[in-house]
Amino acid sequence: MERIQLHDDLQFSRIIHGHWRLADWNYTGQQTLGLLEQCLELGITTIDTASIYGKYTCEELFGNALSLKPELRGKIEIVTKCGIKLANDENSFRLNHYDSSKEHIIESTERSLTKLRTDYIDVLLIHRPDVLTNPEEVAEAFSSLKKDGKVKHFGVSNFLPSQVNMLEAYLDVPLVTNQVELSVMYRDHFENGVVDQCIEKKMPPMAWSPLNRGAVFNNQEENPSRVRSTLQKVAEELGTSTIDEVMYAWLMHHPANIMPIAGSGKIERIQSAVNSISLQMNREQWYEIWVSSRGKDVD
Amino acid sequence: MERIQLHDDLQFSRIIHGHWRLADWNYTGQQTLGLLEQCLELGITTIDTASIYGKYTCEELFGNALSLKPELRGKIEIVTKCGIKLANDENSFRLNHYDSSKEHIIESTERSLTKLRTDYIDVLLIHRPDVLTNPEEVAEAFSSLKKDGKVKHFGVSNFLPSQVNMLEAYLDVPLVTNQVELSVMYRDHFENGVVDQCIEKKMPPMAWSPLNRGAVFNNQEENPSRVRSTLQKVAEELGTSTIDEVMYAWLMHHPANIMPIAGSGKIERIQSAVNSISLQMNREQWYEIWVSSRGKDVD
Amino acid sequence: MERIQLHDDLQFSRIIHGHWRLADWNYTGQQTLGLLEQCLELGITTIDTASIYGKYTCEELFGNALSLKPELRGKIEIVTKCGIKLANDENSFRLNHYDSSKEHIIESTERSLTKLRTDYIDVLLIHRPDVLTNPEEVAEAFSSLKKDGKVKHFGVSNFLPSQVNMLEAYLDVPLVTNQVELSVMYRDHFENGVVDQCIEKKMPPMAWSPLNRGAVFNNQEENPSRVRSTLQKVAEELGTSTIDEVMYAWLMHHPANIMPIAGSGKIERIQSAVNSISLQMNREQWYEIWVSSRGKDVD
Repeated sequence: MERIQLHDDLQFSRIIHGHWRLADWNYTGQQTLGLLEQCLELGITTIDTASIYGKYTCEELFGNALSLKPELRGKIEIVTKCGIKLANDENSFRLNHYDSSKEHIIESTERSLTKLRTDYIDVLLIHRPDVLTNPEEVAEAFSSLKKDGKVKHFGVSNFLPSQVNMLEAYLDVPLVTNQVELSVMYRDHFENGVVDQCIEKKMPPMAWSPLNRGAVFNNQEENPSRVRSTLQKVAEELGTSTIDEVMYAWLMHHPANIMPIAGSGKIERIQSAVNSISLQMNREQWYEIWVSSRGKDVD
Repeated sequence: MERIQLHDDLQFSRIIHGHWRLADWNYTGQQTLGLLEQCLELGITTIDTASIYGKYTCEELFGNALSLKPELRGKIEIVTKCGIKLANDENSFRLNHYDSSKEHIIESTERSLTKLRTDYIDVLLIHRPDVLTNPEEVAEAFSSLKKDGKVKHFGVSNFLPSQVNMLEAYLDVPLVTNQVELSVMYRDHFENGVVDQCIEKKMPPMAWSPLNRGAVFNNQEENPSRVRSTLQKVAEELGTSTIDEVMYAWLMHHPANIMPIAGSGKIERIQSAVNSISLQMNREQWYEIWVSSRGKDVD
Repeated sequence: MERIQLHDDLQFSRIIHGHWRLADWNYTGQQTLGLLEQCLELGITTIDTASIYGKYTCEELFGNALSLKPELRGKIEIVTKCGIKLANDENSFRLNHYDSSKEHIIESTERSLTKLRTDYIDVLLIHRPDVLTNPEEVAEAFSSLKKDGKVKHFGVSNFLPSQVNMLEAYLDVPLVTNQVELSVMYRDHFENGVVDQCIEKKMPPMAWSPLNRGAVFNNQEENPSRVRSTLQKVAEELGTSTIDEVMYAWLMHHPANIMPIAGSGKIERIQSAVNSISLQMNREQWYEIWVSSRGKDVD
């Protein structure tokens, strides 16, 4: 599978496997390991998780699976995230909030390492832009984690350009990615400067919710219906029967080197994402989908 | 006529003649040549056209006229644009879309050179921000065209600041202008950072639709009516009877060195744009029009 | 009191006393002097005024008070502003407008020096972003005022990031602050890049209307009512009885080094702002107020 260069010594597989709903799949450790091995066979080496996924359980579920075959650690890249504190039964928080303090970043990462049963994270992301971001503290936390070999690279998620610029002004390491929502049905970041900045800074974006949580499949409103028709038409032209492949291909045809996160626990669905890489969408088909989604012709 | 410096070796006349509707004027080559000569007598040396104007016909109409008196080529600056593909009878496109691929930029420019009957373009603009812009390809196309002497300078049109920044990060030539819609009735780019960026980068903007397609003259809605009254009042104060002169003068009073594109085929209308240069609008009159257009006082 | 470093040789007190309504207080010179001395006892050394405050009268009222005890001049920092022209009985302006011409900046500052009975301004701000800003003229005015020792430092007020970038590209002095509206009830500048830019450029913002002109105290609409309840709850937790202290503390807990402008003529109210500095708000309380103000949980 095509690999995307994020830094001199860092590559991701074009398709990334997402563990957002890993806890919902109710897999045994052996089953989770099996899914990982199937992903690896498809060329998917990059795993996306986060401290809070599955109410703080997904990292551990994956770590347990990985511990059944520790030699796989060197063959994969693990992306995890810190910076959100969920109110739940185990802690005393009254409400969900963000925390990008030095203390939290380091503590959260230590917990991630323990749960993931690994001694390093390939890429650590700040999960959401904390309004209280003190970039000096973030810089200190990143430097400390890097110096200790606990994290190799750093990035952000859901950051706007002004937030990336603000943080980067204080860091002595580059941000290697911005993980944002991107899909046929969610065009905001193509229009508000986020994707422009990713290209400008050679910081390939990871795309979450690349299928828009299935809205385009089920939603009967006017806009999704119109987009679905267009996707079906293009699917026929490209010789595939599934519109989710077209949705993945649409993201990957964009020159920003977008890396879609396939968040399914079923290997057939993941296979579908991989298949989409070989679809040869042309520029006109891409714009037909764009125009269908925005509901009006280009100017 | 005042001339605006866009680069060390590039100046435009303050007023630019626009060929957007050249095909609608139904002029013979000799008539088009006559109009050009009248423009030159007024000091207008810069011509704005585009590959797609008149459904791909305007460049050729002008080229034919120019061929009647080739010695005029050295006395004018030709601006043309590439990057839009219109669906029409002659090609197989299903829908209008954008294309800033290296291949398209070069092919479109070659066609422009042929149609315009010239061996160089003074300034080539990317007509619209292509969502699929690959800035490396644009940079290669620009370098190639410049090296071959086919295009002397490059710019953009209708680009937002993030799109300019993204593209410039890859170019080894400066962008000399951003051609955008600017008028008394269309204030967006004064408020969204586009004009700020033009000043910051010393990249004087060309203004298309400086008379807002006449909306202010004919539209009976509240906002245009109010603006028309204000323009008439200021016109009286400035000693002119035509509000379009005030609209041009309003743009040129701004410190960004805005170059209005006068898109008329009638020399009287073009003369009106030229006359506006000598109007001495003051700051208070300028703001009276600004306030009238936004419909509320400044804060 | 904590002091904020704005430049190598410039510090402000964390709380700033605002003279926006000085004329409304109907104080004698002696009373105004008394208030200043009470502020100084509290550690407030920075005074914020503007040419136009009190319809051009506030600077003079303060200057008269200061002349009663000139030795205080060296113990305070005076911030004043230029760039707005109000239509009033004394001049011939038809409407309020902005003016950032070299001529106006210098003339306005000369008048401020005379009215304030001082021979230097600590920080001069451009009061509002003039749409007609010619940054070369602003740069010339600033250089001239600095060279003559009339102004020590410069800043802006109510500027968006693109306007700051545009102006800074021409200045040979740094902008030391951007004075903007910031409060529990006015979150815009936390979300539109203004505060991000302040942190990026190490340019601490001054906050005007930090109590949102009392809207949260009196307004019975849903949103202010909800925020008031949250503020009251946090006030109890922090052991204070006044929610305005919580509103000040909320601004100062943010890492941008926000300096609230307390615009009251009553020393008890100013004391309240100073008291807020010692409140130990935690991150969760901060976000509880944030969430209450935006009316929805963080994502």
